[in-house]
Amino acid sequence: MPRKKEIEEKLKTVNADIGDIIRIIRNDEQHEGVLMPHHEFSDDDIITIKLKTGYNIGIAVDKKTEILLVQKQKTTEKQTKRIPYDQKKPTISIVGTGGTIACYIDYRTGAVHPASSAEELAFSVPEIFDLCNVKSQVAYQMLSENIEVSHWQALAEIIAKELNNGAAGVVIPHGTDTLGYTAAALSFLLKNLSGPVVLVGAQRSSDRPSSDAAQNLIAAATVAATSDIGEVVVVMHGEISDTFSTIHRGTKVRKFHTSRRDAFQTVNDLPLGKVENGAITLHAPYRKKTTGPVTTDTNMEEDVAILYFYPGMKPKDIPEKKGIVLAGTGLGHVSTKLLPRVTKLIKDGTVIIMTSQCLFGRVNMRVYSAGRDLIKVGVLSGEDMLPETAYVKLMWVLAHAKNKQDIEQLMMTNIAGETAERTKSNAFLQQNN
Amino acid sequence: MPRKKEIEEKLKTVNADIGDIIRIIRNDEQHEGVLMPHHEFSDDDIITIKLKTGYNIGIAVDKKTEILLVQKQKTTEKQTKRIPYDQKKPTISIVGTGGTIACYIDYRTGAVHPASSAEELAFSVPEIFDLCNVKSQVAYQMLSENIEVSHWQALAEIIAKELNNGAAGVVIPHGTDTLGYTAAALSFLLKNLSGPVVLVGAQRSSDRPSSDAAQNLIAAATVAATSDIGEVVVVMHGEISDTFSTIHRGTKVRKFHTSRRDAFQTVNDLPLGKVENGAITLHAPYRKKTTGPVTTDTNMEEDVAILYFYPGMKPKDIPEKKGIVLAGTGLGHVSTKLLPRVTKLIKDGTVIIMTSQCLFGRVNMRVYSAGRDLIKVGVLSGEDMLPETAYVKLMWVLAHAKNKQDIEQLMMTNIAGETAERTKSNAFLQQNN
Repeated sequence: MPRKKEIEEKLKTVNADIGDIIRIIRNDEQHEGVLMPHHEFSDDDIITIKLKTGYNIGIAVDKKTEILLVQKQKTTEKQTKRIPYDQKKPTISIVGTGGTIACYIDYRTGAVHPASSAEELAFSVPEIFDLCNVKSQVAYQMLSENIEVSHWQALAEIIAKELNNGAAGVVIPHGTDTLGYTAAALSFLLKNLSGPVVLVGAQRSSDRPSSDAAQNLIAAATVAATSDIGEVVVVMHGEISDTFSTIHRGTKVRKFHTSRRDAFQTVNDLPLGKVENGAITLHAPYRKKTTGPVTTDTNMEEDVAILYFYPGMKPKDIPEKKGIVLAGTGLGHVSTKLLPRVTKLIKDGTVIIMTSQCLFGRVNMRVYSAGRDLIKVGVLSGEDMLPETAYVKLMWVLAHAKNKQDIEQLMMTNIAGETAERTKSNAFLQQNN
Repeated sequence: MPRKKEIEEKLKTVNADIGDIIRIIRNDEQHEGVLMPHHEFSDDDIITIKLKTGYNIGIAVDKKTEILLVQKQKTTEKQTKRIPYDQKKPTISIVGTGGTIACYIDYRTGAVHPASSAEELAFSVPEIFDLCNVKSQVAYQMLSENIEVSHWQALAEIIAKELNNGAAGVVIPHGTDTLGYTAAALSFLLKNLSGPVVLVGAQRSSDRPSSDAAQNLIAAATVAATSDIGEVVVVMHGEISDTFSTIHRGTKVRKFHTSRRDAFQTVNDLPLGKVENGAITLHAPYRKKTTGPVTTDTNMEEDVAILYFYPGMKPKDIPEKKGIVLAGTGLGHVSTKLLPRVTKLIKDGTVIIMTSQCLFGRVNMRVYSAGRDLIKVGVLSGEDMLPETAYVKLMWVLAHAKNKQDIEQLMMTNIAGETAERTKSNAFLQQNN
């Protein structure tokens, strides 16, 4: 008999359905919790239960494993949830955008739903209500790889409105794939922040054992409700265990792993701080929140591209655009063969910024003659900026500068913490802490 | 008086020229060594001397610093160098290709030259002769960003010839910018290696204090002369101090920092091993050298590109090519808007491989529907391969496969250690060790 079938029969025998509290007894271990739906990526012999702590665990079941029904789910008792309100607590606004984190799980029943409201998301982690009051809305429901400039602009307007209407901070649950891009973009679109704007995601959805959704949401709410940060930040797992979450500056953070929970890492700087056991520690300088009002400045030029250089790249591989961010090699190089094409494009009005595919460290085109040639024809230095951040900055700058000089001036100005005069040499593969 | 002028006068007073041995006395410190040329990136008040250990140091000179002439360089004594030969020692072949490491410094005089022969390079680090005999030649002298397929092919032929002529191993000094690409390419072009093929570079040239050229060359020679590795590897500084060098597999390594000496890091695997105090430790499985003969298989399709996805990328941003490596987001995604273009290109014969711009972790397009759509139209998974490695592999596979099925089959086969069935979860931002 196949494993899955066997387990289904075992559960049927004790009349245990999804949402019921069960006890699993295997050798000397006992685990009690709410029976969760089988996850399509779990092995067939795994039963997932939600423990009282809110954490999901997967337990391998064999022939000798005993399953007991502890309590049937009270299905008749229709829960009408109302967001609690306590006037002594700060109020945060949760603005949903989609992504893995929005595939929430009902806290009580263990059933998986796409969150049709950010409210539901909050209810899936009721610990948040101990911290603060929650206002919520959904801006849109999207796979984050489909998010574009217009979504950044709409989101910026909503965030400004929420903060200006009295929210202490704003939490943006977001798909992790392009979370870094959105964080960088919002950093340029929003001005004079009167509270923290916290982007948060989950690498593993709530129906999986080891989901990071709950801890990330609670940490994000903590930062939004109680910190005096006046920047756009990203809050995600600090390391693979559930010990702490890291607060990253929106313009300096990047997703570095396809699946690990600590995939987000600050580049060329130290993280702003962390959230551990509910307490925020800030160990790097940050912009403090203002008394408002928050304003938006959302014009962006969309005719911009990121081009990753590779050996053998041909002149025709560089398209005509208003702006191009090159991810060159090392200190900021591309092959000599591309120089005539780069020269022509710049002459015709394209703005070209050099960043490095190394990602860590600083572009310096003055070291080698090939780099100096690029400077001569007008390639601008992206300094210590991530290619992704240079991309959104260039989109913003092109829509705000009046002339070439303006563009250069703005690109070289630190607007949202995206660049620093000196890069900390220890800010390399640091792991968060 | 400007600093630089002041120092020049101080040196003139004691009749000290570049290449002479001087002593610098500052407070309680004394340093003796060969006076080096002033480096254009050093501050004006720095004198660089080469210590007896071969290591360069920069010393800040102020008004109270005393400089003594110890010994004039014997300029009349023209050194006619001959490579020593000891038949009891293994013989390695050094094949120069250019790059920062080739800007060698004359060991005795301290003068900087571009190495016109790999022999000169060996003489700049005579410690190598204690280990082995050296044969040397220059394949070409290039900035590594200009290296292309034809250079990889020529290099592979030279390496095969050297090994087949009895070299214990081959050392390839190479510019660091595209060293990772060349290492990956050679891994596919060379078969049945009878000795280690070791690529090595320097992040800082020999005329700078803190140059990594000498340690890297010695470590590379050690691996080439004495290890039983039958793979293409990269040997570079393991960490920022001069404690050890790391041995990376050629298909799993990437330059991650524009300037740090430990810029090279193994991705999605542990490094093969290290060289510390002259001793090699190998702590990961590797392919052992054969008894030969080494063969080459150097056909590559050059009409291939790496495309880095970004929010707002347009269908027309994906060009017509025989092969495309996408660096998608997260588990391997691009925006839904690009799907029709991707579909059409594949229908027309383009082979498209998905990798992740996260760099760490594994592509898995089966998790989300958007990824499953990409699989459906024929996008192949790059699994745990770096985009750079997938690029050279695709060039090689397209020139070797007879049909579409062949291409898929070869792309999914581990040919040169470029992919593993399981990615070690601890192989993340690990720092070398």
